[in-house]
Amino acid sequence: MACSKYEYVKLFEQNITLLPNTWLVVRVDGHSFHRFTSEHDFAKPNDIRSLQLMNYAAQRCMQEMQDIVLAYGQSDEFSFVFRRSTNLYKRREAKITSTLCSLFTSNFIFHWKRFFADLELKYPPSFDARAVCYPTDQNLRDYMSWRQADCHINNLYNTAFWSLVQDTSNPRTEREAQAILKDTDSAAKNELLFTQYGINYNKLPEIFRKGSTLFRRLSEVAASTRDGTSEVKRTKNLVVVEHGDIIGDKFWQENPQILSI
Amino acid sequence: MACSKYEYVKLFEQNITLLPNTWLVVRVDGHSFHRFTSEHDFAKPNDIRSLQLMNYAAQRCMQEMQDIVLAYGQSDEFSFVFRRSTNLYKRREAKITSTLCSLFTSNFIFHWKRFFADLELKYPPSFDARAVCYPTDQNLRDYMSWRQADCHINNLYNTAFWSLVQDTSNPRTEREAQAILKDTDSAAKNELLFTQYGINYNKLPEIFRKGSTLFRRLSEVAASTRDGTSEVKRTKNLVVVEHGDIIGDKFWQENPQILSI
Amino acid sequence: MACSKYEYVKLFEQNITLLPNTWLVVRVDGHSFHRFTSEHDFAKPNDIRSLQLMNYAAQRCMQEMQDIVLAYGQSDEFSFVFRRSTNLYKRREAKITSTLCSLFTSNFIFHWKRFFADLELKYPPSFDARAVCYPTDQNLRDYMSWRQADCHINNLYNTAFWSLVQDTSNPRTEREAQAILKDTDSAAKNELLFTQYGINYNKLPEIFRKGSTLFRRLSEVAASTRDGTSEVKRTKNLVVVEHGDIIGDKFWQENPQILSI
Amino acid sequence: MACSKYEYVKLFEQNITLLPNTWLVVRVDGHSFHRFTSEHDFAKPNDIRSLQLMNYAAQRCMQEMQDIVLAYGQSDEFSFVFRRSTNLYKRREAKITSTLCSLFTSNFIFHWKRFFADLELKYPPSFDARAVCYPTDQNLRDYMSWRQADCHINNLYNTAFWSLVQDTSNPRTEREAQAILKDTDSAAKNELLFTQYGINYNKLPEIFRKGSTLFRRLSEVAASTRDGTSEVKRTKNLVVVEHGDIIGDKFWQENPQILSI
Repeated sequence: MACSKYEYVKLFEQNITLLPNTWLVVRVDGHSFHRFTSEHDFAKPNDIRSLQLMNYAAQRCMQEMQDIVLAYGQSDEFSFVFRRSTNLYKRREAKITSTLCSLFTSNFIFHWKRFFADLELKYPPSFDARAVCYPTDQNLRDYMSWRQADCHINNLYNTAFWSLVQDTSNPRTEREAQAILKDTDSAAKNELLFTQYGINYNKLPEIFRKGSTLFRRLSEVAASTRDGTSEVKRTKNLVVVEHGDIIGDKFWQENPQILSI
Repeated sequence: MACSKYEYVKLFEQNITLLPNTWLVVRVDGHSFHRFTSEHDFAKPNDIRSLQLMNYAAQRCMQEMQDIVLAYGQSDEFSFVFRRSTNLYKRREAKITSTLCSLFTSNFIFHWKRFFADLELKYPPSFDARAVCYPTDQNLRDYMSWRQADCHINNLYNTAFWSLVQDTSNPRTEREAQAILKDTDSAAKNELLFTQYGINYNKLPEIFRKGSTLFRRLSEVAASTRDGTSEVKRTKNLVVVEHGDIIGDKFWQENPQILSI
Repeated sequence: MACSKYEYVKLFEQNITLLPNTWLVVRVDGHSFHRFTSEHDFAKPNDIRSLQLMNYAAQRCMQEMQDIVLAYGQSDEFSFVFRRSTNLYKRREAKITSTLCSLFTSNFIFHWKRFFADLELKYPPSFDARAVCYPTDQNLRDYMSWRQADCHINNLYNTAFWSLVQDTSNPRTEREAQAILKDTDSAAKNELLFTQYGINYNKLPEIFRKGSTLFRRLSEVAASTRDGTSEVKRTKNLVVVEHGDIIGDKFWQENPQILSI
Repeated sequence: MACSKYEYVKLFEQNITLLPNTWLVVRVDGHSFHRFTSEHDFAKPNDIRSLQLMNYAAQRCMQEMQDIVLAYGQSDEFSFVFRRSTNLYKRREAKITSTLCSLFTSNFIFHWKRFFADLELKYPPSFDARAVCYPTDQNLRDYMSWRQADCHINNLYNTAFWSLVQDTSNPRTEREAQAILKDTDSAAKNELLFTQYGINYNKLPEIFRKGSTLFRRLSEVAASTRDGTSEVKRTKNLVVVEHGDIIGDKFWQENPQILSI
C-alpha cells in the first residue's frame, strides 16, 4: 500500500501567496452571530462581556503570532494586521487565514467562562476569515478608518433602535423602530436619543462607540529580582487595548512604532 | 464620519473562487499537535478518545454543511469532500476554508468533555485548513487513497516505534527506536511486532489502521408517532462512520450515492 | 554590479497554474477590431479573406503546439483546446496565454499577404487572450456549443443588418437597420432576408454560419519514396478544417480521437 | 439554437486582478529567440538593428497605452511599468498581459522592415509575457536595477565569449570559450577583452552595456502656426529613449515625474 502512486494529487493544490512587502489584514467575522447572540441573550445594543471576550481572544492571538502588530475589533469582527515584512507560513493565504481564524475561534470558546461565568455555551460558535493586502500605510489607515467609521455608524443606529424597542413606557416593535429611523441622519439620531431617552451619545463608553484597538507598546512592568528579595522595573513589549479614535493622525503619531515595524 | 470615503479599500479583496463542477476537498490539520498531544498525555501510538472526538466534530460539521458528502479522518487531520455542484458561499475559497476550519475547531473544543471527561483542556488547540479541487471521480478517489495509505504507513511505523519505546522489559529511547526502524519495510515491521511483542498488526482496531470514513446513508430509524402511542420506522439520511478500506472498489460500489450526488 | 542584491524581486511573481486534468481553453480575441476591419475595408457581414487568414494562423499555432487538440474560430476570435493532460509550461497560466496570443498575432500578420494580396496592413493589429479550465467533456462541449451558437446568432443578425444597409434600392442608415431588427426573432430575420433580398439564410456558406473547426485527423497523404522513383501513401496526423455543426453529437462521434486524447 | 443554455460556462473564468495601488510591471520576453537570432543571422554579441526594433516597438506600445510610464529593454526582453493608479482593463491580469504581449509582437513584425531592410523575416517570431506587482517605489527601482545589472553581466560575458569565438587569428569553439570564461569575475573579463582584443569595455556603446530606458518627458517641439506662416515652440509629453544608468539615484532625481504619477 504505497503512497507514491497517489501522491500526484498534491499537485492540484494552488498555494496562493500574499504579495510580499504589503500589510496583510486578516478579518475574522462571526458566522451566523445573529442567531448566536439571540440564543445566548446578549445585551442589546452591546454586550460588554462579549466585547471583552473578543478582545481577550484577539490578545491571545497576538501573543501567539508575534508578526501581528495591530488589531481592531468591533461587534462580532476583528481585523488583524501583520507587519509588511512578515514571512509567516511563507505568506500562504490559506494557511495564514485558516490558522488565525481557528486560533481566534478556539480562544473565544476556551475563555468563554472567564466572561460569561453564569452562562453556558449552548452550541459552538464559528467565524470566517479573509485576507487582504494593502500596499501603503495610507491604504492600511483607510482600512482601519473604514472599520471604525462602520463601528460608529452601526452603533449609533443600534443604540437608537434598541432604545425605541426597549422603551418601557412606549415599546416599539422592531419594525416600527426601523421605520422611525429610516432616512434619519446622525444628528437626528443623536437628537432622538437625547430628547426622548436623556442619552448623550458622546458620553457612552468608548468601547461601544469606537471599538477596541490592540497594539504592542514598550511598557514598564514590575518584576521581582531572581532572589525574590526586591522588586524592580522591567521593560516589556506588551499588547495594550485602547478604545480611542484611530481615524485621525493623533493615534498614529503617538504610536509610531506600529507602522515603522 | 462617513464610511464612503474609505470603502474603496474593499476593492483590494481578491475573492478567489474554486473551479465549478469539481470535487472540493478541504483538509483540516492539527496545528502544533505534537505539543498538544504531549501536554495532554495522549496515549501512543493512538488515543482512541481523540479519534472519537475528531469523528464527532467532523460529524457535526457534516450536519451543519449539507453539501459535504464524505469525510475521512486519521491522526490529527480530517478531509471533507463537498459535492461537485456545491455553490456554498459561491465557492469562495477563503470563506469555505475558514468557516469549516473554525467550525471543526469549535466543535473539537466544545465536545472535548464528552470524550476526555477527566481531563481539562490546558490551552486552546487550533487547526489549519486548505482547499483543493479535483476534476474527476478518479482524482478524488486517488486523493482518498493517498490519505488512507498515509494512515496505514504512519500507523504501522508508530505502532512499532511505541512498542519499542514502551517495552517494559527493554525500553528503548526514541532515538534508538528510530534507528531500529530506519529502512525497514512493512514486512519487517509486521515481523518485529509479532515476534517481539506478540502483536498481529492486522488484528489491531480498524480505526487505527484504516482511519474513519463518514458519509450519508439512508437509514431506518425508530420514531414515535405524533400521538406517541406507537413506534414507527422512518427513513433518514444519516451520517454514518466506518473504518473499512476505501482504496479498493468495494466501498464505492456499495455506496454509489456518494459520487453520484 | 551584482544581480543578487536585487533578485528578491522575483519572489513577487505569482505563477498561477491551471488546475491539472482539466481541458484548457485559451480564447484569442481581436482587440479593437471594429476599427481594424473598418480601416481595412473588410467586406460585411463577413470577409472571407479574414476568416481564412484566421484559420491559417490557427493552424500554424496547432502545428507549433502539439498539445492543442481542437480549435474553433468565428469572426475575430479563436478558441484553442489543450488536452487535459498537457503539462505545457507546467500549466502556468500567463505563459500559456501570452505565448499563444503572441504566436497567433504573429502568424496573422506574417501571413497577411497570402490572403490580402492587394491590401497593405495599415497598422499592426493586436489580440487579447484568456484561459479557462473545464473539468468534464460535457463542460468543454458546452463551451464549444456556446461559441458556435454565438456565431449563428451574430451572423444571422449581421446578415440581415448589412442587407438593409447595403440595399441599393432602399439603403437604410445603420441606426434604421438596428431599429428594424430590434426584438425580431430568428424566424423574422430569416423571413426578412428571404422576402426582401431573396437570401435563403441556410444556403449561405457554412464557414459564415457555423465558423471553423480545426482538429487533427489521421489522413493518407501522397509521398514519394526515398529514391523518388515511385509514389506511396503515408498516414499523417494532419490538422484539418471543417465548417459543420459541433453542437450535436455527430461531430464528436465521428471524431472520437479528439476527446479521448 | 439559443446561447443561454450554454452561457453557464462563462462562470468558469477566474478573472484574477492585480492588486490596486501597486506598480504593475509586465515583462515581454522573446520566445525561442536563440533559434530566431541564429536563423536571421543576428550580429553577436549584439545586433543593433534588433535592439532598435525592440525600442521602436516598445515606443509604439507606450503611445498606445498611456498608463505605461516607463519601459526598460535589453537583449530580447522589455519590461513595461504601468502607473500605480492605472485601472486599465480593471487591472485584469490576463487582459493586460496578453494585450501588451500581442501589441509588442505585432509592432515588432510590422516594423521589421524599417530596421532589417535587406533581410526578410523567415518565420513569425513570438514572445511571452508575465505581470508582477510591486508595492513600493523601492521595490520597483530594485526590479529595474535587477534587469540592468542582468544586462551588464550578460553583455560583459557575451562580449568576451564572442571575442574568443570570432577571434580571426585564434578562433575558439563555443565550448572552449565557455571553459575559458568559467569562474572568471568581471575584472578578469575586462582584462581579457583589453589585453587580447584591445577592447575597453567601458567605451562600448551604452545601449549594449546599459540597455534602453523609455519614459515620457515634457519636450519642446517645433510646430507651425495654423496659418502656416510662422514656426512656434509647443510643449509635448514625448516618449524619449536613453541608455544611461538607472540603478543610481541620478536618473530618478532628474526625472521625478516618472514615479510621481
